[in-house]
Amino acid sequence: MNLFEAISKRRDTRHFLEDPIPEEVIGVCLDSASHAPSVGLTRPARFIFVRDKESRSKVYDLFMEANERALELLHADPEREKLYSSLKLEGIRESPLGMVVCVDYSVLRDFTIGTIYSAETLDWSVCCAIQNFWLALTAQGYSMGWVSILNFAEIKKMLTIPDEYKILGYFCIGKPATDYDSMPMLKQRGWVQEE
Amino acid sequence: MNLFEAISKRRDTRHFLEDPIPEEVIGVCLDSASHAPSVGLTRPARFIFVRDKESRSKVYDLFMEANERALELLHADPEREKLYSSLKLEGIRESPLGMVVCVDYSVLRDFTIGTIYSAETLDWSVCCAIQNFWLALTAQGYSMGWVSILNFAEIKKMLTIPDEYKILGYFCIGKPATDYDSMPMLKQRGWVQEE
Repeated sequence: MNLFEAISKRRDTRHFLEDPIPEEVIGVCLDSASHAPSVGLTRPARFIFVRDKESRSKVYDLFMEANERALELLHADPEREKLYSSLKLEGIRESPLGMVVCVDYSVLRDFTIGTIYSAETLDWSVCCAIQNFWLALTAQGYSMGWVSILNFAEIKKMLTIPDEYKILGYFCIGKPATDYDSMPMLKQRGWVQEE
Repeated sequence: MNLFEAISKRRDTRHFLEDPIPEEVIGVCLDSASHAPSVGLTRPARFIFVRDKESRSKVYDLFMEANERALELLHADPEREKLYSSLKLEGIRESPLGMVVCVDYSVLRDFTIGTIYSAETLDWSVCCAIQNFWLALTAQGYSMGWVSILNFAEIKKMLTIPDEYKILGYFCIGKPATDYDSMPMLKQRGWVQEE
């Protein structure tokens, strides 16, 4: 697929079909992620896959807790609260594959180019890898959704993720059930008004 | 250009030709950046271009200061120190266009989906936009380099960037003078040994 087509077709997906994802598809995505820029060529991105239903169901419970907290912030604005409640913001149980993406801070044990003022540059490197992964999924007919409404400290405990890993997101991966009329879902659903 | 070709050809460039960059090229890059995923569809990326030589020369001075500090951390390892000193880690004066990329934290004045546990999700959105921008440059025959060895507080003062903007990087943009034998420069120069 052409780069610009992949960039414009990439969606943050929360509605998935049940189709499983071939391992080769994920292999291509991981290879694309490995080509992302990384500060000092540290390549600090770590990908942890969540395949079993029980774990995904626990992640969903954590999402529901976090989402309740988010909803409380909207109590003063009933119209907005109603719209927010109607939005599907994750596909944790339906998508056949979950993924936690982490930044491995152990790379800082050695001198690392580009971290002198902020080690957040490591996080930013991993985000570039995530974007490559996402575009590679899109070009192969798959998609994912980035779930940020989660207490990552709880996810870390649940999946016994090493202390030195910082979680950037939980991702639901699968075959998209819709492309939201070729626009971001939050635009399609009127959450955001924009050009 | 095919997505996977763009992903593998994208380099962190520090050696530039003098060719100017057509405005249309930057326009395509900004459009690609605007298609990046962003938390709550906030689109918090802000791009500030640095065109005049005097400002770029000041940025270079700030780089030199920061790089001296970095070098001090290598005093105990003379071999590594020597290699580090020989690396060209920026192209601030030669590249015809400088760019500061910021995260606009003013979007948090309204309720923002996906920021309940960490507003860093805004930074991560901007990194995805940066990666789209970079791939779009690559597909058009241009490149850029991400300079992190800088005291961004000083850059903020120098360019009178709004308080609510967080700087993620200074970028040198231009026509690449080399592709470093089709590999990251830090690999080509032996700073990082890897597969």
